[in-house]
Amino acid sequence: MKQNKYDDPDFFDAYAQMPRSTDGLASAGEWEVFRSHLPELKEKTILDLGCGYGWHCQFAAEQGATQVIGIDLSEKMLAKAKALTTANNVEYQQCAIEDFTAEPGSLDVIFSSLALHYVEDLASVFRKSAELLKTGGVLCYSVEHPIFTSNASQDWHYQDGQIQHWPLDNYFHEGLRKTSFLGSEVVKYHRTMESHITLLLDSGFDIQAVVEPKPSDKLVEEMGWHDELRRPMMLIIEAMKK
Amino acid sequence: MKQNKYDDPDFFDAYAQMPRSTDGLASAGEWEVFRSHLPELKEKTILDLGCGYGWHCQFAAEQGATQVIGIDLSEKMLAKAKALTTANNVEYQQCAIEDFTAEPGSLDVIFSSLALHYVEDLASVFRKSAELLKTGGVLCYSVEHPIFTSNASQDWHYQDGQIQHWPLDNYFHEGLRKTSFLGSEVVKYHRTMESHITLLLDSGFDIQAVVEPKPSDKLVEEMGWHDELRRPMMLIIEAMKK
Repeated sequence: MKQNKYDDPDFFDAYAQMPRSTDGLASAGEWEVFRSHLPELKEKTILDLGCGYGWHCQFAAEQGATQVIGIDLSEKMLAKAKALTTANNVEYQQCAIEDFTAEPGSLDVIFSSLALHYVEDLASVFRKSAELLKTGGVLCYSVEHPIFTSNASQDWHYQDGQIQHWPLDNYFHEGLRKTSFLGSEVVKYHRTMESHITLLLDSGFDIQAVVEPKPSDKLVEEMGWHDELRRPMMLIIEAMKK
Repeated sequence: MKQNKYDDPDFFDAYAQMPRSTDGLASAGEWEVFRSHLPELKEKTILDLGCGYGWHCQFAAEQGATQVIGIDLSEKMLAKAKALTTANNVEYQQCAIEDFTAEPGSLDVIFSSLALHYVEDLASVFRKSAELLKTGGVLCYSVEHPIFTSNASQDWHYQDGQIQHWPLDNYFHEGLRKTSFLGSEVVKYHRTMESHITLLLDSGFDIQAVVEPKPSDKLVEEMGWHDELRRPMMLIIEAMKK
């Protein structure tokens, strides 16, 4: 099943209210870390898997990329992306992440921001990414962390209204999780850390970085995000095609 | 502080009752997975960091290793290892893991079983391992998993005597954990998954495997270990010196 939750009008409208939607990359807490793991984008050919509003595609174009392709299954997302994007070398295609195609060995960089946890068959996405990338090309993606996705509740354990800890469970039971996001039921796929690394290695990638981003000390103090130091929420992996 | 808990007589006696102590590697649930990530040991020079009873050293000798060095800080452990080991090419040295030395580039394989979570300065151990290994040499180690070590209680969250979930907390607060093992207080060091991978990459290793071992379906049924599928307890990493 290829999920197209973002064409659900209520879900799309709720997503539109998120700071990362209204304000772009600067309002995505993990952006600076994600950016630091992207290779040089100048004069490169780039593919963005699950491009959403197109903020990352626009960024790549601003960095001097030769060509940027953003794919997303959601028609509404792509309409928004096209409206927001000013660069003329960004092309958007309506396509499921599992179905993207390009000339083998034609891409320098594939990136994906918080989209691959919606994909059931991650192995095939990694295999195809390896096929489409040049040798030395980079795949960089962020997903929800296995610690975050393991338990479908995706919420803290409370007692008397106070957070007690993060309730981890079902870690080795990979696969579908029906969870709640922006007031709607959303289907995500939980995978272990071992699966992420093994699927990448088996697809012909070298591991360049495994990052568990956390808010800076400054943001923790300013925003009162102390609880965000109690469990990782996201995982960023940078891998290089051998 | 270099910990030598195993020379505490009560702790040593409690450890001696564990199946992995009395029966050796076959009784260590993670052994088959660990073994599968060791390279060919025949005619190789091997170092075992925190060798304990020496089961792994003995195994390496049986595989035809040329020379095996086992180090441990505990005099009692080494006495036991010497008594149990029949091979004549295994040498035991009383030495903290942080203090081992050998000729640079002289080793083929360094392994370590469930010892590195007792070491405060893991970065220096990895740097030294990279220095002592030949190019293409392998470091393979098991530790308690970051999910297991993050919360010092290292126990399930119960309600009415029933396991509810694994209470994860303080994930990003790396460092010392005073916890209980075999009825004694033990000091361990919690590290994030990111730290393990980053320290290895920064020390000049390629990541070959990241494994979260779990009991086989057979053991889950026979032993009733269903709860062991709810959270990972161990982490095995195989890395190759570049």
